[in-house]
Order: sequence, then structure tokens, then C-alpha cells
Amino acid sequence: MSGETSRIEAFSDGVFSIAATLLVLELKPPPANLPFWRGLAAQWPGFASFLLSFLFIGIMWINHHRLFTHVRRADDVLMVTNLLLLLGVVWIPYPTLLMAQALTSSRVSEAAILYNGSYLALALLFNLQLQACIRRGLVDREYVALRHIARNYAIGPVLYLICFAATWWSVPLSLAFNAALALFFLVSPELWGKEHHRQG
Amino acid sequence: MSGETSRIEAFSDGVFSIAATLLVLELKPPPANLPFWRGLAAQWPGFASFLLSFLFIGIMWINHHRLFTHVRRADDVLMVTNLLLLLGVVWIPYPTLLMAQALTSSRVSEAAILYNGSYLALALLFNLQLQACIRRGLVDREYVALRHIARNYAIGPVLYLICFAATWWSVPLSLAFNAALALFFLVSPELWGKEHHRQG
Amino acid sequence: MSGETSRIEAFSDGVFSIAATLLVLELKPPPANLPFWRGLAAQWPGFASFLLSFLFIGIMWINHHRLFTHVRRADDVLMVTNLLLLLGVVWIPYPTLLMAQALTSSRVSEAAILYNGSYLALALLFNLQLQACIRRGLVDREYVALRHIARNYAIGPVLYLICFAATWWSVPLSLAFNAALALFFLVSPELWGKEHHRQG
Amino acid sequence: MSGETSRIEAFSDGVFSIAATLLVLELKPPPANLPFWRGLAAQWPGFASFLLSFLFIGIMWINHHRLFTHVRRADDVLMVTNLLLLLGVVWIPYPTLLMAQALTSSRVSEAAILYNGSYLALALLFNLQLQACIRRGLVDREYVALRHIARNYAIGPVLYLICFAATWWSVPLSLAFNAALALFFLVSPELWGKEHHRQG
Repeated sequence: MSGETSRIEAFSDGVFSIAATLLVLELKPPPANLPFWRGLAAQWPGFASFLLSFLFIGIMWINHHRLFTHVRRADDVLMVTNLLLLLGVVWIPYPTLLMAQALTSSRVSEAAILYNGSYLALALLFNLQLQACIRRGLVDREYVALRHIARNYAIGPVLYLICFAATWWSVPLSLAFNAALALFFLVSPELWGKEHHRQG
Repeated sequence: MSGETSRIEAFSDGVFSIAATLLVLELKPPPANLPFWRGLAAQWPGFASFLLSFLFIGIMWINHHRLFTHVRRADDVLMVTNLLLLLGVVWIPYPTLLMAQALTSSRVSEAAILYNGSYLALALLFNLQLQACIRRGLVDREYVALRHIARNYAIGPVLYLICFAATWWSVPLSLAFNAALALFFLVSPELWGKEHHRQG
Repeated sequence: MSGETSRIEAFSDGVFSIAATLLVLELKPPPANLPFWRGLAAQWPGFASFLLSFLFIGIMWINHHRLFTHVRRADDVLMVTNLLLLLGVVWIPYPTLLMAQALTSSRVSEAAILYNGSYLALALLFNLQLQACIRRGLVDREYVALRHIARNYAIGPVLYLICFAATWWSVPLSLAFNAALALFFLVSPELWGKEHHRQG
Repeated sequence: MSGETSRIEAFSDGVFSIAATLLVLELKPPPANLPFWRGLAAQWPGFASFLLSFLFIGIMWINHHRLFTHVRRADDVLMVTNLLLLLGVVWIPYPTLLMAQALTSSRVSEAAILYNGSYLALALLFNLQLQACIRRGLVDREYVALRHIARNYAIGPVLYLICFAATWWSVPLSLAFNAALALFFLVSPELWGKEHHRQG
């Protein structure tokens, strides 16, 4: 029931790298009847969804990596929560593509609900994973670093719920907030770290 | 003829992660002439087959991982049985997709025969792998954990044969039984473990 | 210029697992206007090419793995010969698909020339890799095992050249010979090993 | 904030292997109305773009590997620069495909601007990565090898800028220069090494 985590990380890395690169398959040659650069520009929803899904899934990978540097043992529950988390990660390119395509149509608010809702679900899945690690004693005892991660994870669902709710108020604002959250979860360990150093 | 197992696991992880994510390629934008949510809902066979193949292949990966934590050496026979097992894993998304698409057509019983039959074949391939490991002395000597795994594997083909036969009686029942078996093979090591602890 | 081989193996495993599973993308749902099983049967070229490319690339992976268990160091030349070998591996699914599709057309001999010629090229690339390892002193000193591998590799191009030439005489015979060669390169280390044990 | 680099390399290997094999998906069976070999020959833009993107991404992988043999620790900044580098690597197959398709059309100079410009961007991303490693003290102290790498990286953007500018003068020349640069970055460590040995 116990075991090392290296193979879980290897399987996760495979799934993350597939998910991150998935939307590159949607990049098609520009139509021959348009001038080259105008034909490329007309495909901006494809480029935007590839760029966003690659970078945001990359940031999720970084956070997955940060957590697993503290995971010392794996058990069945961790493997299941990790599987559900990976399912969420592989799902992300689909709402991202729909979101980008909807920007030029009248369905933009529905697509944004699906898009921001998917990120809310992922924030919950990251917390499920963290709780499984902590409750089952699978993490090491570097309390400070883990406390930073736990604080980060705990506010994730709250922030993404605000982002999700903002969709009904203003879609562009909700998308900007969503992107800001990705950046926040990229740099927040550095911020907590500095804050901690000031306190220490 | 002997060797370490890490590279076999790395190749297997690559194949498992590709197989698990394969049906995400079938998720297409909803047709533009339907309302957004109705268009999404009309694509439920795609979502269902992606979800099922991801989770069931994920559970197979967990079982593959459980077995390999006990494999100490690899030989040519193990590499061949593992290759056949991976072939079965990569095959699963195809009958899953046909099964989901058939649910709205009149071909549901034929698709269920292929679907449940594929899982029966996989149960046999898992046993072939286990037998290769045991007969050729490739596993470690943690008898208790291995005995649990061997017990699990041994009843697999029997249970999937019942599931396969149930297809002729009732397709929905056979599909529900198939899903229940996936859950069973996810949690059974925990169950055996507890039973063992009660006995010990 | 020297270095460990683990990352070369990891990159190779990624490419091998993608190449092996590539033709599963060609498996399409059977047409709706045919009965289920007849519709499936009509797609046998797709199944055959998936099965053959998966198994033959799997056997190549086993041989790649066998060689690398003896490679102690990597240098730039090894990385280049390995890259060319991987290029050949990724290429294989394409002639395999054309071969299977050609079986029901009048282009069968042309497709067989491409198919058997591709395997001849791969046999040469495997030898290029082996020679790079030996000439540059990258392998360990387990002479017996390596001598078996070197003997195997050396006869590869000769056998595949016969197979290639046989295409002009009889396509079915050349294909059967090609499949027999895959089996031969799967089991030959066992055969050499036994022969050696009898001699020893 | 510190950590090992093995998982970053594993994720990178996954992305590199996907990027390198991406254009094999563009190889389609030749049209049935043409003779076999003529039908294949008519698809040369597909073969050329597959071959070039596989080899050039392979050479980038070799350079990524060379750098990471000297990286001892990873931090958040390295993970971000690595993510941006991988984004560039996954992007390469797209301009390569457009370039190959444009060779038979009147859009060849626009496609070459995109193609050579993409390689210029990648040369800058490789330098961003190297600078992150050096400035943040993540590399080991094998100064000579690292100085060779740093020298290589530093001239990269200059050479690719010349290549990019050459596009307006002569597209064929710029493409030949681009290919020559890939070969240069493959063999240059050997060249610097020999030069160093002569001096030493």
C-alpha cells in the first residue's frame, strides 16, 4: 500500500505533456484564398487557445511538481486523487478551445461559464489531492514550505469561485481575472517565501 | 536476460498516458446551429467514452504499478507479456468509443459484446503477465502483498467472463457490472489488506 | 561529451511509445450502413496495420533496451545515431498503413517495396548505432552478451536485404519473411544464450 | 524553491518527443488516382517538413540535454524559462509545415519570414534559459564545458538574425543557412572541445 512516487510522477508527466501540447493539433494552415498574414491572423482563436492551454497547464505542472517534492510515500488514495486531477488537466484544452472560438460568436458567456467553471473544478481537485497527502501522512515534515502550499491551495477555490461568479457580470473581466490567477499561482510561493523571510 | 525494470515502466507509462488521453481527441466543438448547452449535451457519448476510458485505463495503470512494485528483475518473456498487455490497453479506447456511440443506435448489443469481450481479454493478459513474473522468479518475496495481487488477478477472468455472458441477458446490467468491476479492482487491495489485518 | 544515458532512454521511450500507438488513430467507427461485425471486418487493414506496427515497434523497443543495458556512456555521435534510429522507428507506421491498404488494391507490390525497404533501412540504422557504441568505447565489458547482440545486428541487414529482394519474387512470401524476422529478433538472444550455455 | 531537475527533464522529454513526432500525423496515403510512386512524390512537402522538424527538434533536444547535464538545481525561474522554451519547441512544426507547403505556391517569402523568425525566437529562448541558470547559480562549476555552451548560445541569436534578414534577400539561401545552423549547433561542442584541446 505504500510505495515510491517516482512512477506516479512519470505517468503524470506523460499526461501533462500530452495535455499541454494537445491544441497544437488545432493549428491548421491558413486558407489559400486569403493573403498569408491575414490568413494567419484570422486563425487567432486557435493560436490563443494553444498559447493559453500550454502556459496554464504548464503552471499547473509546476504546482504539481512543487507539491510532489514534499510527497514521500504514495498510497491508493493518492493515486486516485492524482488520477482525478489528471482528468481535470486533460479536460482543460477543450473548454479553452470552445472559449477562444466563442469570442467571435454570440455564445461567449456560455463558453466562459464552462471555462471558468472548469478552472474552479481543478482548484477543488488540487485541494482534494493536497488533503489526501496531508490527512494520510504522505508528506515530509518541512512544515514551512508545505504551509505555504496549503495556504495557496486553500484560497484557490475561493478565488476561482469569484472568477466563476464574475462571468455573469462581465466576461472579459472574468477572463482577465482567470489569467491573473494563473500568474498568481505561478509566483505566489516566491511571495510567501519573501514574506516568511521578512518575518523570520 | 536479466535487467532492471525502470525502463519497462517508463515505456509502459508513455503508452498508458497516450491510451488514457486518446479519446480527448474525439471531443469536438458543439455544432453552431444548436444552443451551446444543448450542443454540448448532444455530444454526451464523446464525453462518456473519454471519461470511462480515462478512468478505467487509469485504474489499470494503478494495478500495473502495484504489480511492478514487486517485480525485481525483467527478462525477455516479461517484456513480451508486458507488450501484449500494453496492446490491450491501447485497444480499450476504440471499443469504448463504439460502445458510447452505439447507445443511441440499434447496435448496442453488438458493441457491448466487443466492449465486455475486450475487458475479458485484458483480464487474461494481466494474468499472463502475473504468471510470467511468478513462474520465472522475477518477483520479490513479500508473499502477503503478492498473494493478494494473485488472488485478485485469478478472479478477474471469472468475473469478466460473467460480465461478458451477461451482455446477452441485459446490456445495461453488463455495463453496470463492468463499471463495478473497475471499482472493485481499484479498492480490492485495501479490502484484502484489511481482511488480512483482522486475521493477523 | 560524456554523460549518462538515462535521459537518452527517456526521450527514446517517449518517441517509441508515440510511434507504437500512432496507428490506433486510424481506427474509425465502422460505417453506419453496414451490419456491426461486417463493418468492423471491412476495416481489417486498419486493425492489421495497428497490430503489426505496435508489435514490431515493441520488438524494436526491446532490442533498443537490450543494447542500452550495455551502454555506459553517451556522447554526441551516439545521440545522433540514436536520433536517426528514432526517425526510422517513427516512420514505420506510415509504410505499414500503406501496405495494409494496398492489400485490397492493385498497388500491392509497390507498397511492399516501400514496406520491406523501410525495414532494411532500420536494420542498417540499428547497426550504425551499435557501431557507434563499440567504436567509441561506450559499452561495458560484458563481452558475451554484447557479442550475441553484435552477431544479431550483423546478420540483420543481410536478412532484410533478402526479404527486400523477395518482394519482386512474391509479395506474400516477403511479408511472411518480414514477420518471421521480427519474431527472430525477439527470441534470438535466448537462442544464442542457450547455444552459448551448451558450449560453455 | 530548490529541487532536483529530473522531473523537469522528464516533462521536457515528453514535450520534445511529442513535438518531434507531430508532423508524422500529416503523412497521408497518396491519392488513389495517381501511380504509387508519383503519388508519394507529390507529397514531398509533407515528408520534408516531417524530416526537418524531427531532426531540428532532435538537435534542440540534444542541446537541451547538454545544458541540463550542468544544471544542479532548479528553481521557479528556471521552470518558467524552460516552459517558454518548450512552447517554442512545440511551435516549430507549424511554421515548418507552412514553409514546406508554401514552396509550391507564391507565398514562399512570407512563410520563410515566419519560419526563420521562429528559429530566431527559439535562439533567444535558449539564451533566456541559459542566463536564468547562470545568474541564479543553478549550474555546476565545470567552467570549460559551460563556457563552450555559453559561447555557442551567445552567437545563436546573431546567426539566426542574419538568417532571418537573409530571407528578404534570397529565400533558398536563408533556408540553406538555417539548415547549416542546425548542423553547426549539433557539432559545435565537438569543435570547441578540439580547439580547447589544441590550446590546452
